[in-house]
Amino acid sequence: MKYLLQVDFPHEGIFGEKMAEAFVELAKDIANENGLIWKIWTENEETKEAGGIYLFDNEDDLHRYLEKHTKRLESFGYSDIRAKIFSVNEPLSAITNADLTGGK
Amino acid sequence: MKYLLQVDFPHEGIFGEKMAEAFVELAKDIANENGLIWKIWTENEETKEAGGIYLFDNEDDLHRYLEKHTKRLESFGYSDIRAKIFSVNEPLSAITNADLTGGK
Repeated sequence: MKYLLQVDFPHEGIFGEKMAEAFVELAKDIANENGLIWKIWTENEETKEAGGIYLFDNEDDLHRYLEKHTKRLESFGYSDIRAKIFSVNEPLSAITNADLTGGK
Repeated sequence: MKYLLQVDFPHEGIFGEKMAEAFVELAKDIANENGLIWKIWTENEETKEAGGIYLFDNEDDLHRYLEKHTKRLESFGYSDIRAKIFSVNEPLSAITNADLTGGK
């Protein structure tokens, strides 16, 4: 079964290309997390929020990562980090064209 | 630019296979939404929540769909529907193996 982690938090800072430049090394590190299929990086300059949608191939790695990433975000000065965990309904997601395999 | 719509709501009902059976026709309909690249169907039987993560290829179709889908969910009896809109940081998402193209 596949699990989805939905994270967002208030973000007063850089967006877009500047965000992409600043977090290349972090993204490379995250790409190697055990159990992670993919992460989509999200941002909203208008509402001053950022976050990520993560797809994991097991729930234990998701919980391990969420604990690690929350501490990292807090160390960067972020607070009010909102996280939700879901299982993926794979038959319905297949009908709506979702790719649950990742580019690895 | 690609846009991500994050929707979740309290859900006291069916999950898993039963959800998959009940919503096949709705999923086929959603798959044909203009501008939609994919939808991942999410559910959490423990917290009694469900939702969806949607990837759109433009912001106008996302807003149109969100209005339509919110009305539909309300017509099904759902309330407290939480929606967040983000743009996708594509360079960082590519590093973390996200597929932003869909299976269409």
